[in-house]
Amino acid sequence: MNLHFDPETDLRLTRQMKAAPETVWRCWTDPELFAQWFAPKPYTVSKVNYDFEPGGRANLTMTSPDGKDIPLQGCVLLVEPARRLITTDALREGFRPAPDPFMTAEILFEPKNGGTLYTANVYHNSVEAKTRHEEMGFHEGWGIVAEQLDDLSAAL
Amino acid sequence: MNLHFDPETDLRLTRQMKAAPETVWRCWTDPELFAQWFAPKPYTVSKVNYDFEPGGRANLTMTSPDGKDIPLQGCVLLVEPARRLITTDALREGFRPAPDPFMTAEILFEPKNGGTLYTANVYHNSVEAKTRHEEMGFHEGWGIVAEQLDDLSAAL
Repeated sequence: MNLHFDPETDLRLTRQMKAAPETVWRCWTDPELFAQWFAPKPYTVSKVNYDFEPGGRANLTMTSPDGKDIPLQGCVLLVEPARRLITTDALREGFRPAPDPFMTAEILFEPKNGGTLYTANVYHNSVEAKTRHEEMGFHEGWGIVAEQLDDLSAAL
Repeated sequence: MNLHFDPETDLRLTRQMKAAPETVWRCWTDPELFAQWFAPKPYTVSKVNYDFEPGGRANLTMTSPDGKDIPLQGCVLLVEPARRLITTDALREGFRPAPDPFMTAEILFEPKNGGTLYTANVYHNSVEAKTRHEEMGFHEGWGIVAEQLDDLSAAL
């Protein structure tokens, strides 16, 4: 189904990428590739544990430049290979409710101009949550990692 | 995937029903039938608005004997016709995070003894949430509506 994007509560990042959707998708679903682009440098990804099916885990650990681990846990909701991926932190593995729901992310991989039009739609439940996400540096952070993803997928 | 049932945090109701899985499933997915069994009498269901696909709405309004409306909103996560249905209140329509996540419900319809072994697994994120659900009358309430569902589906 088409999700409803509400500019009041939701955030969007788009980027035209050089590689084809299948290659950009591979950078999402191959854990070794994923770890190379998902954290905005100098942060790194130290652990990746995804299970790409509805209800599967979407867990990873980021490590800050001073060595602090930041574990992130979520759940995979929808998998359309090389087309669309939806995950949320409102649920954990096995669709179990999470204590602190914040966002659902929908990633779209559309073939365009010989490459991929990459879109990340991020859904929140309030204007306040959206604003908080913007203040946490959504546009900069997601922009940096999209650039890293573009570079990595183009080099494969 | 098989969800992980944890007796510490989760609740389960099972009932052997007389009707076949396809008929019990119909009582879930036909809004007119659904309204006849889903609320423990003398509560009634005054509105049913489900969309049976991943990300679809799972909304309804119950009405108390003194006429007070209780709107409930959730999201459909997984649909396996006549086999399994998963919904959650941790998300709203379109997978949007909900403000007050409480539970994910997995309903299983298994053919058994010429009828249906009906199982409701209810997943919470803490022992506290499970206990609260028990104190709200989980076993009695879900037991009453399972009996209503059994009676209705057997009469179709």
